Amino acid sequence: MHNIATLPAPRNAWYVGAWSHEVTEKPLARTILNERVVLFRDRAGKAAALEDRCSHRATPLSLGEVTERGLECGYHGLTFNGDGDCVFIPGQDSIPPQACVRAYPVVERQGFVWLWTGDPERIDDATLIDWPWNDDAENWPVRYGRMHLKCNYMLVMENLMDLTHIPYIHRKTIGGGDQMGQVNAEMITKRTDTGVHYIRWMDGIQPPPTYVKAAGFAEGVKVDRWQEFEYVAPITVLQWTGALESGRGARENRDQDGGFSLRIYHGATPETDTSCHYYFAINNGCMARSEADNDKLFQEIWNTFLEDIDFVERQQACLETDPERPLVDIKHDSARIQARRKIERMVAAESAMAVAAE
Amino acid sequence: MHNIATLPAPRNAWYVGAWSHEVTEKPLARTILNERVVLFRDRAGKAAALEDRCSHRATPLSLGEVTERGLECGYHGLTFNGDGDCVFIPGQDSIPPQACVRAYPVVERQGFVWLWTGDPERIDDATLIDWPWNDDAENWPVRYGRMHLKCNYMLVMENLMDLTHIPYIHRKTIGGGDQMGQVNAEMITKRTDTGVHYIRWMDGIQPPPTYVKAAGFAEGVKVDRWQEFEYVAPITVLQWTGALESGRGARENRDQDGGFSLRIYHGATPETDTSCHYYFAINNGCMARSEADNDKLFQEIWNTFLEDIDFVERQQACLETDPERPLVDIKHDSARIQARRKIERMVAAESAMAVAAE
Amino acid sequence: MHNIATLPAPRNAWYVGAWSHEVTEKPLARTILNERVVLFRDRAGKAAALEDRCSHRATPLSLGEVTERGLECGYHGLTFNGDGDCVFIPGQDSIPPQACVRAYPVVERQGFVWLWTGDPERIDDATLIDWPWNDDAENWPVRYGRMHLKCNYMLVMENLMDLTHIPYIHRKTIGGGDQMGQVNAEMITKRTDTGVHYIRWMDGIQPPPTYVKAAGFAEGVKVDRWQEFEYVAPITVLQWTGALESGRGARENRDQDGGFSLRIYHGATPETDTSCHYYFAINNGCMARSEADNDKLFQEIWNTFLEDIDFVERQQACLETDPERPLVDIKHDSARIQARRKIERMVAAESAMAVAAE
Ligand code: FES
Ligand code: FES
Ligand code: FES
Repeated sequence: MHNIATLPAPRNAWYVGAWSHEVTEKPLARTILNERVVLFRDRAGKAAALEDRCSHRATPLSLGEVTERGLECGYHGLTFNGDGDCVFIPGQDSIPPQACVRAYPVVERQGFVWLWTGDPERIDDATLIDWPWNDDAENWPVRYGRMHLKCNYMLVMENLMDLTHIPYIHRKTIGGGDQMGQVNAEMITKRTDTGVHYIRWMDGIQPPPTYVKAAGFAEGVKVDRWQEFEYVAPITVLQWTGALESGRGARENRDQDGGFSLRIYHGATPETDTSCHYYFAINNGCMARSEADNDKLFQEIWNTFLEDIDFVERQQACLETDPERPLVDIKHDSARIQARRKIERMVAAESAMAVAAE
Repeated sequence: MHNIATLPAPRNAWYVGAWSHEVTEKPLARTILNERVVLFRDRAGKAAALEDRCSHRATPLSLGEVTERGLECGYHGLTFNGDGDCVFIPGQDSIPPQACVRAYPVVERQGFVWLWTGDPERIDDATLIDWPWNDDAENWPVRYGRMHLKCNYMLVMENLMDLTHIPYIHRKTIGGGDQMGQVNAEMITKRTDTGVHYIRWMDGIQPPPTYVKAAGFAEGVKVDRWQEFEYVAPITVLQWTGALESGRGARENRDQDGGFSLRIYHGATPETDTSCHYYFAINNGCMARSEADNDKLFQEIWNTFLEDIDFVERQQACLETDPERPLVDIKHDSARIQARRKIERMVAAESAMAVAAE
Repeated sequence: MHNIATLPAPRNAWYVGAWSHEVTEKPLARTILNERVVLFRDRAGKAAALEDRCSHRATPLSLGEVTERGLECGYHGLTFNGDGDCVFIPGQDSIPPQACVRAYPVVERQGFVWLWTGDPERIDDATLIDWPWNDDAENWPVRYGRMHLKCNYMLVMENLMDLTHIPYIHRKTIGGGDQMGQVNAEMITKRTDTGVHYIRWMDGIQPPPTYVKAAGFAEGVKVDRWQEFEYVAPITVLQWTGALESGRGARENRDQDGGFSLRIYHGATPETDTSCHYYFAINNGCMARSEADNDKLFQEIWNTFLEDIDFVERQQACLETDPERPLVDIKHDSARIQARRKIERMVAAESAMAVAAE
């Protein structure tokens, strides 16, 4: 078993490198899986990711600027295209091949800039997430968020894979009210090829005030409410939370108009072994969706996440004090445990592969 | 000999964990002897100290809250009583024994919350200090202070065990005036079972202005002044400073009305090997003792301590640069040297005991 | 080859310890080549440098004060003269020889306080720079600067030994305009006994606006412009930048009235292996030299240096990530490479000497 405080991440996987709107002609420095990366958009509008270190004197390329030729180092002008080739050296004509820098394969779609951190020969799209709602602004208006967290990425995943934390961490906000009711909601967990999936159902309950406000449920109406979460290793949790009026058959078809419906993409790209970039996209599938409403919803969710972050960051610090000490699993940990097992297997397989290759 | 910059502390001893008034139903995180501790007061009013790490997922328990059952973890609700037993796990009935957390024996009295950091089988009250003046508010009104210091705890003890620093460190405040007179005052040092004791006498001197103001000495009166300090290993210095009008027999009986009389408890509980919590209780035994007078006295002493702290923290930094390099003892170091010898013996004995036990 | 991120400095050399005006009766703490040093001026006005650590209890002497006897420790009063001898211990008459502290040989001249950090037996003035312009206030009014940099000292030297950075780092300030013209200026490099020297010439060019303003060139006049830089190992670069009206024979004699002429002393004394103190003296040899003009010039140069510092500090951070990884030399690196070879040889020779001595 790996150390929980510093679980490594598999290298042969797609990681969120940035949101599309963050990648512009102004170079963006971001450390990913312990590597300094610079993201930029070339003059043709193509997103690229290079190691953030000039081959000449090890200056960060993110201090440079995009020119017609590519990304120009800000110190003495060496210039690199999006494939990492050195295409210009001031004052000399021949360019030695070792002047190139490492390039990361990039896929840009649905608002995400995905980076492949492993061996380019092994590119495999199993870890490339499909999140079509980002492209459907009319029905699923979206807000993008990013936070820097001082914790191992899996602490974020675990936080999301056990919702019994809601009436505790969020006891003063969204988790107020019937504590044990929330803890003991029905939960169906199933292992998947890429991770683990669960859905929690609360049938025939009175909708929470925020749901009423967002979806416009009539007074006295009861609803069937669900919380669906799927962990897709290594760094993603896909969330769909909603409610339909009882009797409308939510269990058979959740995709009906007139209810409460919210999708959240959660991704935690490792920065170092003990820190990560937390990306989230919030897609509001409810009726009420003026710009102001969506901004407000985003702000409320942001505030809720801040409560979680306080916990996972302090959990990290506490884990680091004595990382080898055993912990105790409880009954509610079923989905969380499966998620960790999945990533442990993935990391172990990659280590084994690396050993075999030596 | 141990490294002065990082002298460890004996574990089998009582340490000040907090002042009584600091321990409430709101959990209090404090690192003591390199361990994360959470202090809290249960619903029955009893002070308790647990390791600040939930057995479930290593979240600090200090993020939780006190309930009827005990201290509830703020992440998923596991609850612990003051003995560290896990008394509740949401969603399950049976509680595995390994779900408990470590509890520290606690003694609360005279305004102190004492913690035993060692083996509970070896509890021994030799290091539990008696400071009855904190319970005698009428005659000895008290003010409590605490500072966080970036130095090994023994640097604080040493500072107090050699008062020749007063005309130097405090040259611009309380140590102004006759420098060599202060340096060369009569000093009687004696070794004790628990450390070392000294008393300095200045007979027939003109009382300092603060003494006159506090004790109301008539104009022209001469006094016999004393400074009594006792180091009680590992972390305490007990101070009694005062003056009586000459001729009243101060040397035979210092406990008379109408003079200047001030007692200070000093305790430096190690936080880490290179930092400590400095606790002090200031008991004013003088005539003048309105609330405002006592506040003012406290403030003056606080400011004086700030001058010392500046030195011991920088001394620490300097020691850390080259901790093995020898130092030079001088004549005035007699009490300081005995104090260090006492703690060195105590630490060595405990190391030997640990080795023997292996 | 040494690690570029942490190149050590030769100990047997003179280093700038401070500017003369910084050394006063108020002790000045400064870390030099990883050693804590205190600089002060005794009552007779003589500058001295001692290790910043009292022999008694390892308190920084920089917390003390200068008395008639020397530098008095602020903790318990031990006093040291400029040779490091302990000359007073309160409360005792005999002074043990081991109470002394290390003294650094000091030479103060031309506004510099030079320190010898190596073996006093090996003092050799080859590394003592002559900068007479600091003593010629009438013709070369001077401004002194100092910055603290988080990078190895040689990154500063390298920055100065390759001016092709100007149209890149300073592209928005002094390096604007004809980028390739600046990159490809004629450059004559020659190795010297103490380092490397180069001069760049731009003949018959239109003078830059700042030159016109400072030197008062008539409209339409063309100038011959030079940039002369000499690296003197270990920590100095001597700069002379100027321009004379074309036809006045600048190449034969640059020291003529009526042109633009600016000398800058650059010194980068290592603080630690990864930080340094950057000292610079700016001597303005131009006609226009009111106090205000000189202040303004200083401010402009200061701002330019800030641009360089941003680069070298980030280069340092980037180098530290993977210090062993190879870099690629380019054609314009000729002077830079010679400078590094010189210091590498010097450091290697000293290591060899140290090994031989063992
Ligand atoms: S460091 Fe990039 S061009 Fe020189
Ligand atoms: S971490 Fe404490 S209850 Fe889960
Ligand atoms: S530490 Fe300098 S005199 Fe005591």
